[in-house]
Order: sequence, then C-alpha cells, then structure tokens
Amino acid sequence: MIDTQTVNVESAGLGRSSRRDRTITQVVPVTFTYPVHFTEHLFDPQQTLLRDILTGPEASGGQPPRVLCVVDDGVLAAFPGLEGQIQAYFAAQLDLTLVAPPLTVPGGERCKSDPDVVGRIHEAINAHGIDRHAYVIAVGGGAVLDMVGYAAATAHRGVRLVRVPTTVLSQNDSAVGVKNSVNAFGKKNWLGTFAPPHAVLNDRSFLTTLEDRDWLGGLSEALKVALLKDAAFFEWLEANAVALAARDQEAMDHAVYRCAELHLEHIARSGDPFERGSSRPLDFGHWAAHKLESLSNYELRHGEAVAVGIALDCTYAALSGLLPEADWRRILDVLRTLKLAVSVPELGSGTQDATNPTSVLSGLNEFREHLGGRLTIPLLTGIGQPVEVHEMDHDILRRAIALLEDVQAQASSLPLSSPHTQGVL
Amino acid sequence: MIDTQTVNVESAGLGRSSRRDRTITQVVPVTFTYPVHFTEHLFDPQQTLLRDILTGPEASGGQPPRVLCVVDDGVLAAFPGLEGQIQAYFAAQLDLTLVAPPLTVPGGERCKSDPDVVGRIHEAINAHGIDRHAYVIAVGGGAVLDMVGYAAATAHRGVRLVRVPTTVLSQNDSAVGVKNSVNAFGKKNWLGTFAPPHAVLNDRSFLTTLEDRDWLGGLSEALKVALLKDAAFFEWLEANAVALAARDQEAMDHAVYRCAELHLEHIARSGDPFERGSSRPLDFGHWAAHKLESLSNYELRHGEAVAVGIALDCTYAALSGLLPEADWRRILDVLRTLKLAVSVPELGSGTQDATNPTSVLSGLNEFREHLGGRLTIPLLTGIGQPVEVHEMDHDILRRAIALLEDVQAQASSLPLSSPHTQGVL
Ligand SMILES: NC(=O)c1ccc[n+]([C@@H]2O[C@H](COP(=O)([O-])OP(=O)(O)OC[C@H]3O[C@@H](n4cnc5c(N)ncnc54)[C@H](O)[C@@H]3O)[C@@H](O)[C@H]2O)c1
Ligand SMILES: NC(=O)c1ccc[n+]([C@@H]2O[C@H](COP(=O)([O-])OP(=O)(O)OC[C@H]3O[C@@H](n4cnc5c(N)ncnc54)[C@H](O)[C@@H]3O)[C@@H](O)[C@H]2O)c1
Ligand SMILES: [Zn+2]
Ligand SMILES: [Zn+2]
Repeated sequence: MIDTQTVNVESAGLGRSSRRDRTITQVVPVTFTYPVHFTEHLFDPQQTLLRDILTGPEASGGQPPRVLCVVDDGVLAAFPGLEGQIQAYFAAQLDLTLVAPPLTVPGGERCKSDPDVVGRIHEAINAHGIDRHAYVIAVGGGAVLDMVGYAAATAHRGVRLVRVPTTVLSQNDSAVGVKNSVNAFGKKNWLGTFAPPHAVLNDRSFLTTLEDRDWLGGLSEALKVALLKDAAFFEWLEANAVALAARDQEAMDHAVYRCAELHLEHIARSGDPFERGSSRPLDFGHWAAHKLESLSNYELRHGEAVAVGIALDCTYAALSGLLPEADWRRILDVLRTLKLAVSVPELGSGTQDATNPTSVLSGLNEFREHLGGRLTIPLLTGIGQPVEVHEMDHDILRRAIALLEDVQAQASSLPLSSPHTQGVL
Repeated sequence: MIDTQTVNVESAGLGRSSRRDRTITQVVPVTFTYPVHFTEHLFDPQQTLLRDILTGPEASGGQPPRVLCVVDDGVLAAFPGLEGQIQAYFAAQLDLTLVAPPLTVPGGERCKSDPDVVGRIHEAINAHGIDRHAYVIAVGGGAVLDMVGYAAATAHRGVRLVRVPTTVLSQNDSAVGVKNSVNAFGKKNWLGTFAPPHAVLNDRSFLTTLEDRDWLGGLSEALKVALLKDAAFFEWLEANAVALAARDQEAMDHAVYRCAELHLEHIARSGDPFERGSSRPLDFGHWAAHKLESLSNYELRHGEAVAVGIALDCTYAALSGLLPEADWRRILDVLRTLKLAVSVPELGSGTQDATNPTSVLSGLNEFREHLGGRLTIPLLTGIGQPVEVHEMDHDILRRAIALLEDVQAQASSLPLSSPHTQGVL
C-alpha cells in the first residue's frame, strides 16, 4: 500500500547560462505499508488470513480479485498435496479467482540464473490478465521469491505480490524486505528493483520439511542481526543454540520472529531503505559470503556462506584487536553448536591474492562495485557493537582464513570458550 | 535522491488461527527528490550545469564519477556534431569519466519494442562498471528515455539516471515524471517500473530541429493539463496558438515550463505518485490515444494521438450535455490552430464495436485492464473542470467519432467558434 503525505514543489531561478534558465525541485514523498504475518497452515480451508488479505480494503472494485500462484518445486516435493490444497482453498472462496493451477518453478538459485523462468512468469501474468489490482502469490524459498518478485515488479510497473516464504532464511530476512532480483552476466542479483510487497505471510508449518542445512543456515542471518543490533538476542541464541540445532520449533519461532523484526526495523529506520548510500550496515559477513557462494557455483547456500563470512570478519576483528577474544570465542561457539561450518574449501588455504578472481579476497572489491562508491564494511568491536571500516588488511585476512581452517578441523572437539582452548588466536 | 523521514513499526497480536500468530505492520517512508532544470546548450564547454549535477554532493566518494551516455539516433541525425561535442565536454572535465563514446540507439517507438536494445544498454552498464554511484545520461525523445530508464532502473536495482529530453512531449511531460517502460507481448508499456530520475535537464536548443509533427504534437499534453487543471493556462494557449504553430521559441519555452510544472505538481500532490489506484486523472483523452497509437502500429505519435483523444472525449462530453458547447468550440479551435488533427483513419467511420479489437472502442476496456480495478475516465464539465466517469455510452461515442470526421474534413475552413458555424453539434 502506498500513501503520499505532503508536498513541496519549489521554483528557483538559478540563472546559470541564460536569464531564462529555471529550476523546479521536485519532492515526492511516498509511504509504503505492508503487513508481515506469522502464522501456520495458511492454505487450510479454516484459515481466513490469506482470503482476508486478498479481499481487504485494497482489493479491486467489483470483480473478485484475480490470483496467480507460483510455487517452488522443492516445496511441492516436500508437500505433495500442496497443489491440490491451494486449488481447494480458492475453489471454496467465491470472492477470489485463481486464474490457473499453481505454476511450478525450479527452486533454489537455478530459477534466478535462467532468464526463461522470469519470462514464463511474465507470460502467465499477461495470459491470465493479472493487472495492478490482481495478485501474484509466490510460495517458496528466497530464490523463488526474489525471482517472482522481479517479474511481478516489472509487469505493468508492478502487480501486487504476496510473499509466502518457506525457508528460515526467507522468513527471517530476504522475504520481509523491499528487494527482488535475478542473476545476469554471471553476476548475482545484477538485475532487480526495490519493490515492497503487498503482504508477507510467514507460515511456520513449511519449515518442518527443510533439510538441516536450510534450517540451520537461515540462522546465520539471526546471528548476524543479533551481533549487529541486539546483544540480548545474541544471548538468547547462545542459550537456545542446542534446541535450535535439535529442530525445536518453538525456539525457531522466536528466532524467526525476532530476526524478522530487527530486519524490518532496520529497513524502516536506517534512513536508506532503497540503499542509495555506499554502506549496507546489515551486510555483516556478506562481502565474503557473496564471493564464496559464487566460487562454489551456488552449491553453498546463502546462509551457509554467511556463517563463514561472519566467522571470517569476527576472526579478522579479533586478530586486529578490534573485537575482544572472549566475544570471538562465544560467537564461534554459537556457530559450532548450530553445526554451521566456519571454513569451506572455497575459502582457500590462506595463500590468497585480492587481484585473483578465484580468491575470496577479490570479493572485497566486488562488494564495493556492487554498492558503488567507497568500500564500507561493517565489523564488530563487541557483541551488538558494529563499526564501519573502509579497508581490510590482506595479511590479517589471510591469517584469519588459516586460523578458521584449524578451528573447523577441530570443530568436533572442545568448545572454543572452554578453559582448555585458550590461546587459539 | 532519497531520504527517509520517520518510522513506525508496530506489533499486534491478531490471534487468527493460533495464539502464537503475530503481525508486524511495516511502514517505510521514502522521499524522492530531483531537480528539473530548464536551460540551453547543455554540452557547451562553458555550461557547468551538467558537470555540477554529476559532481554534486551526491557524487561518489573519491574517484571521478563514471558516466555512460546513450543518445537517440534521430537527435544525432539532427545534430551531427553532438557526439563529438559530448566527448569534448567530458574530456575537458578532469573530475568526470565518460566510460565510452556515446552509445547510439534507434529513436522512436522501435527502441521500446525491440528487447535487444534494452539488452545492449544492460551490457554496456555491465561492461563499463556503471554502479549505483555512477550515471547513465539518456539524450532523446520520450521513447528513448522510457527505454533507457527501464534499463537503468533494473541494473543493480537502479543506477543513477539523468534524463535529457529532446522533444516537446518529453520535456513537458514524459521525462519529468517517475515512470519508465518498454513494450512486450505486443502491448505498449507492458514492462516498466516507477523510478524517479537523478535529474532532468530540459535543453530548449534541442527543440529547434524537431519535425513539425513533434513540435506541435507535444503541445497536446500542454492542452490536456491546462484543460484539467488551469483555465488561465488554457487561455494563454488559446492566445498563443498562432505563435506556437509558427514555431515561436519563446512561446514554446513558456508552454513547456508551465506544462512540466503542472505535471510535477500533480505527481507530488496527487496522493498516488506510483499509481496504485484505478484512476489516472492526468490521462485525459488517453484511453483512445493509446488505442489509436497501437492501431496505427505506432505511426501516429503519442502527442498526435492525444490530440484526437482530447477531441473525442470533449465531443463526447459536449454531446452528453456535460461540457458547454462554447467550451467545446474553443477547445477544438485551439487544436485546429495548432494544426493538430481531430480525426485520423484509425478512428474508424463511426460503425464501431467495442468487442472488436480493431475498433477504437475496445480501447476503453484495455485502458481499464492496464490500470486494473474499475474503469475510470476523466472528462470535462468545463475548461479546467475535470470529472471522473465510470462508463461511456457507445452510441454517443460513435456519434462523436462521426462528428469529428466532419470537423476534420472542414478543418481548413472557418473556426468552429465563428458565428458562421453554430449548430455543428
Ligand atoms: N531479497 C533479499 O533481500 C535477499 C536477502 C538475502 C538472500 N536473498 C536470496 O535468497 C536466496 C536464498 O534463499 P533460501 O536460503 O531461502 O534458499 P533457496 O530459495 O535457494 O532454497 C533452498 C532449497 O530449499 C528448497 N525449499 C524451499 N522451501 C522448502 C521447504 N519448506 N521444504 C523443503 N525444501 C524447501 C528449495 O526448493 C531449494 O531447493 C538467494 O538467492 C539469496 O540471494 C535475498
Ligand atoms: N514515461 C511517461 O510517463 C510517458 C508519458 C507520455 C509518453 N511517454 C512515451 O513517450 C514516447 C513518445 O515520445 P516523443 O513524443 O518524445 O517521441 P519519440 O521519442 O517517439 O521521438 C519521435 C522522433 O523524434 C526524433 N527526435 C527526438 N528528438 C529530436 C530532435 N531534437 N530533433 C529531431 N528529431 C528528434 C526521434 O528520433 C524520433 O524519431 C512514447 O513511447 C510514449 O509512450 C512516456
Ligand atoms: Zn544475507
Ligand atoms: Zn500522454
């Protein structure tokens, strides 16, 4: 939903080259509003939430709103009955028109790298008369939501998108925000727009079928945002890491909710929701993560790569004397308890060279290029205490990489915070 | 430039299906600001305006900002020295980097209908490292600006776009706004986004080489916005129609400035800058215009089609008793003095059928579909007095079409407002 508040059009004579020169300063204030719901069994016929959202005051006048549903094939594989359930849900709603059986798209990064998939969504939007008052519902992981979001944002300059994220990462981070994207020129997220959704529906029942790597990987973003913004949430994660690793759903509910809330607050309050500046304060650990994902040819999940990125930047900060060693130990212990690797083969052996595109160090410059302007990297001086730096010492980074290889090799032995492991740094 | 003001994140327990259900209402306020300059000889080495804009406080830290320039081939044909002039301008600026010689693209609707052209812009943005702190400058008519705008808005989720419109229509309407688009599925503007530019530079010296049809056609939008919003501006157009038709540059300067100003005010104050509602109050005469453009296979220019659309909707309003006959005569006289046709072969012979896609009447439903929701058409009850209607009587429309054919056939004879022509309606 969009709403414009006040207005300001000024004219001023600048008189640069001619006395007929004039300037109008255009000021367009816009407010985007959308709900993020945390619920379960969304397509249960008894559940009215989805119906209420589609037929709400924003709905199109007169005819029943038209709805196109796009579903991640990984979700369909995990919930074979879902397709029929979605059709039954809409069949029971006289005031909604499902324009076609749910469209299935490949789950995971594949759908973002194949331009034909966006083309298929566009074709369906066109063929089924989805207009700016109709809805596209996307059900899937972060990759499918990014791709469908891009298709929906560019069709008719934006049709309404309802996101139903089905992974931990998308429920607590990617799907609650204002971005979409697909890959191009072999580069991740090269194409995309900023386009707030119509609504986000976080259905916890989807999370039960996730592979362990997706259940755990998504917690990297919770750890990330806790380390940047909320020491108490970090302590909660520390205390609940064993339960989370054992797939305790109630613990996951809290982790997802608090993480999403912190991300939402950041977007609303950062002063830069559409990221025009050079810094992206939430992208802690992400310069390395993006590079590792790409080096692994997207075999590594985003969350898994972020875990390594967090470990790397924390180790770098500790080796630089920025982050106290005790904090470093606690952070690496949480990662260990969550069974998240802190080193992967793509990180290399510590003989790294920033000018070599196969080296993780080249990710620093790529990160700068994607944002434009000056290199700006968030680091930690303590838990919940971020700081921005504008360069990273390559020697210290190489030492951090070597150290993490050792830590990973001993991951099954004692926790780093145990008195027996002092002096690792 | 974007700026976020305040913030509001609320949590509320809705308790729909489970007591664990929760909702966060996300509110993201964003303010877009951009200057619209009216100037001349932009690429004259003495003119610092462009340089000032590219190196302003928004510029990227450190390195000279990178600039990719894209030029309409129709503009290059009219100004054969322009390419060299642009290169010389940047060569003289140590603090700016022109990344490549200006890229030439086909002018006019062709560039919006061929997806390869957008692909070429994306390739250049990628190859030359244009990032979110770098600039794309687009020089050309409304079609080229729409197409380059779409490419720039989707690359890296939006690189900075400086628009240099070179036609009357783009200077007074299309290029000062917040929209971009290309055509797809044989439909005009099917793909696009809302993306405010970094700056708009209206250089009046470009207008001197326009064909008469583009000089005059662009004035339709001035007439349109005057009829909707500013009776005094209509009177000014009425008084200056002869001068405008004779290509008086000073009269054109005023027409362009006032028309742009009224469009800018509307976008900022309408409450719906990103057009989420079903009504588009500025699209007076446009339901027929869009259809006529498409029926003519885009041989008709947008402005020419809008002239016919205005004539049609005014005649419809007069025949319906909504618009006083005297006002109708004045409006048609202005069109006649501006040498703008009020009927074209695509309008058909008055034997129209709304279910036939080759009939202009089918444009009513297509207009509704593009906006979604309920059909909403702006009409006039007087000059400067708009009203919205939600249906149009097909019989009266057919009579209006037939009447306009007669008027057009006699266009070279007496003005409609002359005492000798009473009783035409
Ligand atoms: N837009 C943003 O702001 C933003 C932020 C962070 C990450 N991302 C993007 O998100 C993507 C990663 O998303 P992700 O971590 O959700 O992974 P993913 O979308 O790649 O999905 C991982 C796998 O899980 C499957 N899957 C999804 N839901 C399932 C379920 N409920 N049960 C079983 N299997 C299921 C998918 O089919 C896929 O094979 C990346 O492309 C990343 O760039 C976007
Ligand atoms: N984005 C918006 O809000 C919006 C609003 C209205 C119209 N439009 C779009 O604008 C387009 C029409 O734009 P237009 O009327 O400017 O026409 P145009 O861009 O089609 O240009 C018409 C012709 O003039 C040539 N030309 C351009 N500048 C010239 C100059 N200075 N001298 C000589 N020749 C020149 C072009 O090469 C082209 O051949 C349409 O595609 C329409 O959909 C967009
Ligand atoms: Zn992330
Ligand atoms: Zn127009």
